[in-house]
Order: sequence, then structure tokens, then C-alpha cells
Amino acid sequence: VRTIDWVDGAIEMIDQTRLPDDVVTLRITDVPTLVDAIRRLAVRGAPALGVAGALGVALAASDLRDDFEHHVRALRAARPTAVNLARGVDRAAARAGDGPAAVLAEALRVRDEEIAASWAMGRRGADLADELLGARPVVAMTVCNTGGLAAVERGTALAVVTELHERRRLSSALAMETRPLLQGARLTTWELARAGVPHRLIVDSAGPFLLSRGAANLVVAGADRIAANGDTANKIGTFSLALAARYAGVPFVIVAPESTVDLGTASGADIAIEDRDDQEVCSVRGVRTAPAGTAAINPAFDVTPAELITAVVTERRVVRLDRGERLAVSRPHAEASPRR
Amino acid sequence: VRTIDWVDGAIEMIDQTRLPDDVVTLRITDVPTLVDAIRRLAVRGAPALGVAGALGVALAASDLRDDFEHHVRALRAARPTAVNLARGVDRAAARAGDGPAAVLAEALRVRDEEIAASWAMGRRGADLADELLGARPVVAMTVCNTGGLAAVERGTALAVVTELHERRRLSSALAMETRPLLQGARLTTWELARAGVPHRLIVDSAGPFLLSRGAANLVVAGADRIAANGDTANKIGTFSLALAARYAGVPFVIVAPESTVDLGTASGADIAIEDRDDQEVCSVRGVRTAPAGTAAINPAFDVTPAELITAVVTERRVVRLDRGERLAVSRPHAEASPRR
Repeated sequence: VRTIDWVDGAIEMIDQTRLPDDVVTLRITDVPTLVDAIRRLAVRGAPALGVAGALGVALAASDLRDDFEHHVRALRAARPTAVNLARGVDRAAARAGDGPAAVLAEALRVRDEEIAASWAMGRRGADLADELLGARPVVAMTVCNTGGLAAVERGTALAVVTELHERRRLSSALAMETRPLLQGARLTTWELARAGVPHRLIVDSAGPFLLSRGAANLVVAGADRIAANGDTANKIGTFSLALAARYAGVPFVIVAPESTVDLGTASGADIAIEDRDDQEVCSVRGVRTAPAGTAAINPAFDVTPAELITAVVTERRVVRLDRGERLAVSRPHAEASPRR
Repeated sequence: VRTIDWVDGAIEMIDQTRLPDDVVTLRITDVPTLVDAIRRLAVRGAPALGVAGALGVALAASDLRDDFEHHVRALRAARPTAVNLARGVDRAAARAGDGPAAVLAEALRVRDEEIAASWAMGRRGADLADELLGARPVVAMTVCNTGGLAAVERGTALAVVTELHERRRLSSALAMETRPLLQGARLTTWELARAGVPHRLIVDSAGPFLLSRGAANLVVAGADRIAANGDTANKIGTFSLALAARYAGVPFVIVAPESTVDLGTASGADIAIEDRDDQEVCSVRGVRTAPAGTAAINPAFDVTPAELITAVVTERRVVRLDRGERLAVSRPHAEASPRR
């Protein structure tokens, strides 16, 4: 099952806000509905957002009466932290002069590249785990959802977990629940159960402590944006996990497609953090958790400094930040890449 | 309003599982009901548990038909991590030979000492904040609930926040929600709102990140048990906050009564961590958050190494662990203490 796809002239996607209770497929035929779906996280995850953005432009291009430029801008702005969304939008929009068919063809290329990238990230990440851990069975801790639901198939960080499981190298996975929206509890456990991967759920603040007690020997996380110096924006909770991994001497690995690497952003200080509706913090799945009138701060993402990251794994390379390798200079054949 | 008290021959306590929706006072007349109330966290917080244990022994002593020793053991074992519970039980039980009135008198002394201790901790902690921060307005971050609800009146770490507010030194408080049981979201915000203290709620994993961004300049936390070397067991989430405070250069202060200091426990490695029902992780206030059948790990507490703690504040002293002061050797007049 693909999280998002182009089916008979429209976008079809699993509504991730309904998981794990119901598996509902949305059929989306206009950009405002897609923007709303992106904003309310019916589709989320960096690779999936790139595909959603590109397919959204294909939708806009297919209706000549619509204000194409307006729709492109609305799509681009739907999730400010996610560089992939803007990239997917821009790639498809660049073909607008060649007509709707060319835009759609480009959007489908974005989709197919994300699928291929996910499989490659899983393999490279699993190879790196072998390099870092030798023959030790892997207990992998992860945050948020970075599985097939966050991509189109397979995923990013969770693709590594799945690959390790299929190679019989995985002992088990530990999934942080990822408040406030519980992508770990709702989505990651659902995907791991479907894939038959042994796993247990933990509250977010148990992750750092369990690392300090040796409960896991690898941390894998995704990324929403990776700055040129390696500082990485990802779901809130990633920073505290990286800090604890460093304290415990556990490798901390970011797994994300090349499209997440943003060499135009120098460091984490330049990444805008999306502050979401503070009432997400004051309730859980519609149930209030705090007194009425309670105000909150809701940073949806955090920034993990490069110094806490062992390696960045993409579909094309492994950049060992812990060995002083850099994203900008070490990329081989950047000019030959079809993705940049 | 006192969280727990002895009223007309029985224990009365606020049922904290019903907050913030309803303020319900339980009247408890037998030990099994009290043990159940302790286990399901109707009463929680180190000082309050000490009082509950002592008053529970008074209940057991008042009924000569009961198996006194059996009840004492059951009370002692109701929460393994909380040293105060066992201490309160032991103090009251030691007077059993002198009859029920003597047991009750001792239990009421435990109560009155906890009240006096809470006020003293608030004052000492606020003085320390002035020492650490100078004239800067304080933004204090805290985890779990350490207010009057966790004690009898006033509290421990939250007593410091309240005291700073009353001294007009506090800018605002940031409360971590404290999954899985949400004591921060449900109880701390409720207490801060009643006290008129400006505050905002955050998800647990936002605490470390917001510290790294300079959003608070003081962290205060309570303790369930402090080992001789300063390692401190407290609600899960405390460790990751201490680690981030160190990373950000923010003072991290433990505020707890002397009865929490356990010189018989050498270090954090000797503290048993209570693993609670894993299904607490898979739901929030009765609403499932994970697929049916999901297993979890639920360490209710963590251990913060002494090296990450700036100071321990009790009702009698401030121990600057960051300056090499030790809990064991620096305590003045230990032999004159009525509490040990």
C-alpha cells in the first residue's frame, strides 16, 4: 500500500489522522483540500510531503481556470519547516510552461525517486549499523513516524529498522510516542506490527533515560531539514534523544533523503521552527488533559546540533559527522544528481 | 486546602486522579483502601506519601481486630521507589507499643513537619535562585507535580516557584505535562492557575529543546529518593531535563525534604525503578493512543546523576553539588534533627 499516489486523475492518500483506528483513503481533486490535508497532518513525513507538493502542482496544472501561481504558493507555505514540500512543489511547477502532462510526469518522477530513495536509505542505514555495532543484535530506538507512511513506501529511519529486521539483525525496536500528535504511538507501532517487527512503545521522556540504562544500542531518526553544517530539524524530542545518546555513548543516526539536505541554510540557527496550535498540547485525541484556559508552547520541531549526530544517511551516501565529514564537501558527483 | 489530613478519626484526601475536572475528597477508614489509593496515585508526591503512610499506620492501630503488622507491610510496599512512604510508616509504627493515641500523635507530627518543611524549602530555594540568577527575572521549568498536592501544603519544587512569584521575582513557569499520567498537565497547571502564577504547558520532549533555546533560566524538580552521592530518582523526564540544562548552562535544582535523602543508598545504581503497568503508555485518560495489543515499557521514574545537579535544596540546607559539597558530610547537626 502506498501512503500517497496519483490514481485516475486525482491524489489518493491514507488519512493518517484516522490511524490506527481506521484505515481511510482520501481522494483529493483540488489544491485547497490538499493544503488542508497537509496542515492537519493527514499526510506528513518529509518524503511524502515532497510527493504531495509535486502532485498538488499537477492538480493545479490540470485545471486551467484555477489561479496556478496562487495554488503553488499555498502549497509551498502549508508546512514551513519541511523543505521537501517546497522542493516537490518547485520541481513540478518548473515544468508548467510545458503543459499539464509535463507537470504530472515530473510529479510522478518525484514519487518514483522517493520510493527508490527509501529502499536505498534502508540498505545504507543497515550497512552502517553493522559497521557501528558489529555482530551485536540491534535494539533501535526511534521517534515520530518515519516509515512507509512518512514516505511513499518503506520510509527513512524506519526503513533501516525494517531492513535490519529482514536481515535478522534486529532484536527489537523502541518507539517514542511523540507527543503532542502521537505519530509514534499511532503510526509507528501500527507499521511495525504490520511488518512483524518486535517493538515496544515508550513515553517520550523515557527514551533518554532508557538510553542511559543501555536499553538500546542505536538511535535512528528522520529529518525535516538538514542545514549545511549538519544541524538537523526534526520532530520535537529528537534533540533530547540525541543528547542522551551522546551521554550514553550510543550512535545517533539521521536517515533522510538528499532532498532534505538544505545547503542554502548554513546552520540550525537559520531554521524557522513551526509553532503549532498550543491547544494540541492541552488535549490528546480530543480529550482535554489540562484545565480549561491553560496556555501552552508548542514547538513542533527541534534542532539537533551536528556535534550530537554520528552520521547522516541518505539514499546516496553516509556522511560520518562524527569523523568530521561534511555534507557540502563530501557529496560525490553532486552535479550528476537527478535530484538537485 | 490540605491535600491529605486526619479528620474525625479518618484520612481525608483529594483524589488527584479526578483533577483537574473534579475536586473530590475521599474519606478513607481502612488500610486496604488506602493502599489502593496510593497505588492508583489518588495520593502521590514524596511528602504526601510520607504523611499517608504515617496516617495509615494510625488507621491500622485504631482497629485492634486488624492484623497490624500485615497492614504495615502492605503500606510500606505500596510504592517501592518512594522512600518517604516507608519512612512515614516506620515512624508511626515504631510507636505501636505505646498504643493507638501515640501512633496517631506521631503521624500528626509527620504531617506538621512536612508542612513546615514545605514552607522552608520554598524560602531556601528562592534564596538560591537569587544567588544563581542575580536580579534576572526567573523563568522556571519544572516536571511532574511538586506543589501542595504533592505535599500537604505548598510543596517542594513548586513551593520555590510560588515563593519566587510572591517575591515578584518570577516571570513565568513552564510546566512539562509529564506523560504517562500527566501530573504536570492536570495538577501543576491547576495549582499554578489557583495561585495566580503565570505559566504555560509544554510536552515533555519540548522541555530539553526549549532550554537549549534559552526559554528558561532555572529548572526545579522534586525527588522520590536521593542517594548518598546525590544521584536522584524522580519522575521520568527529570533526567533528560537535567541533561539539557547542563548542555544549556541552566542551573538544575532538586528540591525535596530531608526525608527523601537516603544515605543508606550509595548511588543511583542501587535505586530500584518502579516499572508500572505498560498500558498506561498506550492510552491517555482512558483513550487509546496505540493499536490494540501494543506492548510498552513504562519506567515511572528515572535517575539523574549527581554530576548533572547544581544543588539539592531541603528544608534545612542547600547542598551545592556543583561545588563538590556532599549530602553526607555537609549536613549540620544531623544528630539534633527530629526528622532522622
